[in-house]
Amino acid sequence: MIIDATQLSQFESRYRATLINSLAGIKQAFLIGTKSTAGHSNLAIFNSLIHIGANPPLWGFLCRPDTVQRDTLRNILETGQYTFNFIHQEDTEKAHQTSAKFSSEISEFDACGLTEEYLNEFPVPFVSESPIKIGMKFEEKMDISINGTILIIGSIQFIELDEQFLSLDGFVDLAKAQTLTCAGLDAYFENTLMQRLSYAKPEKWPSKL
Amino acid sequence: MIIDATQLSQFESRYRATLINSLAGIKQAFLIGTKSTAGHSNLAIFNSLIHIGANPPLWGFLCRPDTVQRDTLRNILETGQYTFNFIHQEDTEKAHQTSAKFSSEISEFDACGLTEEYLNEFPVPFVSESPIKIGMKFEEKMDISINGTILIIGSIQFIELDEQFLSLDGFVDLAKAQTLTCAGLDAYFENTLMQRLSYAKPEKWPSKL
Repeated sequence: MIIDATQLSQFESRYRATLINSLAGIKQAFLIGTKSTAGHSNLAIFNSLIHIGANPPLWGFLCRPDTVQRDTLRNILETGQYTFNFIHQEDTEKAHQTSAKFSSEISEFDACGLTEEYLNEFPVPFVSESPIKIGMKFEEKMDISINGTILIIGSIQFIELDEQFLSLDGFVDLAKAQTLTCAGLDAYFENTLMQRLSYAKPEKWPSKL
Repeated sequence: MIIDATQLSQFESRYRATLINSLAGIKQAFLIGTKSTAGHSNLAIFNSLIHIGANPPLWGFLCRPDTVQRDTLRNILETGQYTFNFIHQEDTEKAHQTSAKFSSEISEFDACGLTEEYLNEFPVPFVSESPIKIGMKFEEKMDISINGTILIIGSIQFIELDEQFLSLDGFVDLAKAQTLTCAGLDAYFENTLMQRLSYAKPEKWPSKL
């Protein structure tokens, strides 16, 4: 079937949001940890991790300022530091629950049953249950004027992970770490590594690594 | 183990790129089809699909102008139209092979064994083997000055998919469509839907939909 732009514009708004959001791909789910200047811990689930570059190591994520993501955004802009925490499949419901609209004074760590952890003298909390944790420093905010979303770019300060997930060539197996992926606002997936393929060259068909 | 920013900066560049790239998450893989003003078809694999908004339906992707993605970028900026084609797991090697540096005159459709298809009077080729196809119109180019990457934002013109993948509430099951996800430049995954969860509210634990 074909769904065209006119039909899209006429759909009921929640149907359209579910369609366009879920269609936009299966993505890594992760929790962003922050701390407000008043000392309140905050945790929120995101799925818009964007690899910007490896040298310097820069990652971005997209933020909608009119949602529960507002606390995360404000804390990052005020303190300049935040944490990325990949989610173990066992913690799917706890991670999903962080998307509820808790008041700013309530810590989603407490409300959702996840544990604050402080690492490497970083002042912002990590999720202890997370198999892979990354300390981030804010670098740049880009406004996407076309619809008011915001791209937050930060640099990786340090990575905490179990050595068993790291291959000799630097590859990190997020499926082996049983991390969660998601699509749209409510669908959660598990992943299986099928294969790694050799660097593609015009005269040679790719082979398994 | 902890890997800090100093260690990251001292790693051999290919090791660092593999580490930061693979760590940036499992993502939807997709092929972007374009046509040059001279009429040459082009196809290239990407994994940086970014959901910008649902109304209007806007998606972005990130582009590195110094790679094989250059043809894709030039064609989009010159013609204003392009196609997104999700990849069936069976076509992993063909899709990966589009990342080889073919000359601009060679069609990756031919070189990689994928079939051009024209739909809905759209002038740019789709991948016939793709279970989900989306016609895109260029809207905006944003330069990410921090490292020279480019965010291309476009609007969805139409979607072609099999009705069996579309739920009553608008959810599209990309795992059921056996579409491919990837991490870094060479690792490919299959996905299984674990669950969909109810809209999160502070006073209520999420339940399965």
